[in-house]
Amino acid sequence: MTEIIATYLVHEEKNPEKKAEEIALGLTVGSWTNLPELEQDQLRKHKGRVVSIEGLPTDSKDKTLINIAYPSVNFSSDLPAILTTVFGKLSLDGKIKLLDLQFDQGLKKHFPGPRFGIEGLRNILGVYDRPLLMSIFKGVLGKDIDFLVGQLKQQALGGVDFVKDDEILFENELTPFEKRIVEGKKVLQEVYNQTGHRTLYAVNLTGRTSKLKEKARKAVELGADLLLFNVFSYGLDVLQELREDEEIALPLMAHPAVSGALTSSSHYGISHSLLLGKLLRYVGADLSLFPSPYGTVALEKNSALSIAKELTQEDSFKQAFPVPSAGIHPGLVPLLIRDFGVDSVINAGGGVHGHPDGACGGGLAFRQAIDTTLQGKTLAEGAESSLELKKALQLWGSAEAAAK
Amino acid sequence: MTEIIATYLVHEEKNPEKKAEEIALGLTVGSWTNLPELEQDQLRKHKGRVVSIEGLPTDSKDKTLINIAYPSVNFSSDLPAILTTVFGKLSLDGKIKLLDLQFDQGLKKHFPGPRFGIEGLRNILGVYDRPLLMSIFKGVLGKDIDFLVGQLKQQALGGVDFVKDDEILFENELTPFEKRIVEGKKVLQEVYNQTGHRTLYAVNLTGRTSKLKEKARKAVELGADLLLFNVFSYGLDVLQELREDEEIALPLMAHPAVSGALTSSSHYGISHSLLLGKLLRYVGADLSLFPSPYGTVALEKNSALSIAKELTQEDSFKQAFPVPSAGIHPGLVPLLIRDFGVDSVINAGGGVHGHPDGACGGGLAFRQAIDTTLQGKTLAEGAESSLELKKALQLWGSAEAAAK
Repeated sequence: MTEIIATYLVHEEKNPEKKAEEIALGLTVGSWTNLPELEQDQLRKHKGRVVSIEGLPTDSKDKTLINIAYPSVNFSSDLPAILTTVFGKLSLDGKIKLLDLQFDQGLKKHFPGPRFGIEGLRNILGVYDRPLLMSIFKGVLGKDIDFLVGQLKQQALGGVDFVKDDEILFENELTPFEKRIVEGKKVLQEVYNQTGHRTLYAVNLTGRTSKLKEKARKAVELGADLLLFNVFSYGLDVLQELREDEEIALPLMAHPAVSGALTSSSHYGISHSLLLGKLLRYVGADLSLFPSPYGTVALEKNSALSIAKELTQEDSFKQAFPVPSAGIHPGLVPLLIRDFGVDSVINAGGGVHGHPDGACGGGLAFRQAIDTTLQGKTLAEGAESSLELKKALQLWGSAEAAAK
Repeated sequence: MTEIIATYLVHEEKNPEKKAEEIALGLTVGSWTNLPELEQDQLRKHKGRVVSIEGLPTDSKDKTLINIAYPSVNFSSDLPAILTTVFGKLSLDGKIKLLDLQFDQGLKKHFPGPRFGIEGLRNILGVYDRPLLMSIFKGVLGKDIDFLVGQLKQQALGGVDFVKDDEILFENELTPFEKRIVEGKKVLQEVYNQTGHRTLYAVNLTGRTSKLKEKARKAVELGADLLLFNVFSYGLDVLQELREDEEIALPLMAHPAVSGALTSSSHYGISHSLLLGKLLRYVGADLSLFPSPYGTVALEKNSALSIAKELTQEDSFKQAFPVPSAGIHPGLVPLLIRDFGVDSVINAGGGVHGHPDGACGGGLAFRQAIDTTLQGKTLAEGAESSLELKKALQLWGSAEAAAK
């Protein structure tokens, strides 16, 4: 029998066994022991099941992990139905957090996973042996298309692999969606002709829900490289539908905007690994952005690593790129590679644009930091022969130096 | 200049002035003081503005309220863009909760509000002078259409105004969506012919996001009364699009499933009043369900009242019905009317079905409790002449008795 197993973290629950049984019944058949045997037979395949109950060994006694199995026959194979089943009413019921969902193979078949994934994106770029590098437009509200294109060019000249729109750039008169794609493409081609380096531009897909597909198809038609999407201000199923549309065969970059409202509490909501890792991968994100453990907007390190693990570990689906973000500068590259490996994207805004030589210098400094690290050298050693890296370390310092 | 003002609750912020300024700039133009005057002139209309910063007077010093105004020119007039602007990256940035959003008149024009609202629903039912009564199907997973129709009939015979689907009832072979509407309608018409009482059935609109409108139109065609919708497992904009579709001119009942993941923490997420009150009303919910302050799945009383206030207070939009739910039995009716007034819906599951005389008796007991209360009598007094109410009080007790 196919089923989904949900793992909950419960705080201050005096009787976890009773609580678990209430969940297993309350979210499925309602009641059990008082039902006549005939009805029990009829309902057995719908009944939720307590899989396990365990106190967290390393923590204080007020925490319990509860695993409940829900028969798939109870819900349609879409995420809204699954989330309503496993964490609908329950999300309102005391100190409970949804940590994980285990989909069995039957259920997984209803989810697409990334269309491109790590391998597909590497094939597009022809880059296989290093972390990819992304930078973000900065200060674009109120600026015109020339400003945007100029900034895009500088970033591309610095050797970044992706440039992403600011997630707060919406449809606007100065830099409309379609124009950004067309003009962006033009300048990136120029840079490619000049340098041989290919940079992809992730354009922010925004607007009303029912218009997104049409807009995305237009993006395809205009030759867009990737779509950035604020999935948590829409819904995971909306991302999945973009992924499943064969006429929108573009890589999808999921932005974590608004997700903090769901993930930040240790007592309530949904875990980082499930929301920004597993579920984003299952519905089809090729890249998932989340706060790195190092910057100003920092995520606790285990949480950040747990997201990356879910995006990349063995599963039926292609791997998605972890993109630890926020407060990243070249001096952090050794840490990023140590923690997130070669199959990750290093993503910076201020750490690219704030370089003394501008965004181009910033990109170069990052690329030098990456090469240096992969060569097994310290950044200080790399800086001896790499001017941009040297300047970056002077400005921001390096994690290595800080660790000494 | 049109703008939206966001109110945030911040904990443990050592320098609220700095934090507020960082928000106002970081979520709009990025930087300010170091910009040349020419650029400042160009960007002034895009710049966020700190409206006020205040410590919460009655609380410990670690809480601060910050009000930031965001120019509407920065975002498109849809909720995904607004939420990404005011609580996108910021939701990931420390102990911060979004308490409220003030839309100005210009922005409000882009939102529909309820199509029917309290007045419209009362007109459909022809009931003006008492709280409406709703009951919920129970234990329907794995049951066939005859079971469902039988349960619906009993509830309707008890005099309830609405019966809602269980929110965890999805598309299934035994009781498919279309069949539920058709068979439900038939039996409710029978009851009407027999008793003269009109009960409306809220059918659960589920499935993939892009198919919802088609399914809802089919519901209209089949004569459905209302749509129940698990809006928080989809997205607020999806509900708004259902509301705006002229071919889906049905009342919309918003279920709070999954919303607890966003609202439950006092430090993170989004306030109850904003999410389940104001935003649901603005996007067009005619009824909003939320945990009552009395039952087993209880909401803190001020939070529950704040939702009801947002749904009903003076605004550009029609009023939506507050539906305090969970753990409601007839003995709580005086409390419900005292706290939520006549313009609310009293909603019960177990408190209807668990009555010694079944769902019909349960409905009658509630109606008797409502009439008794509105006559200014105590439930104990009412029970003298109302057998079903008497039995209900014997089983569940009454809030009045408990208060003695």
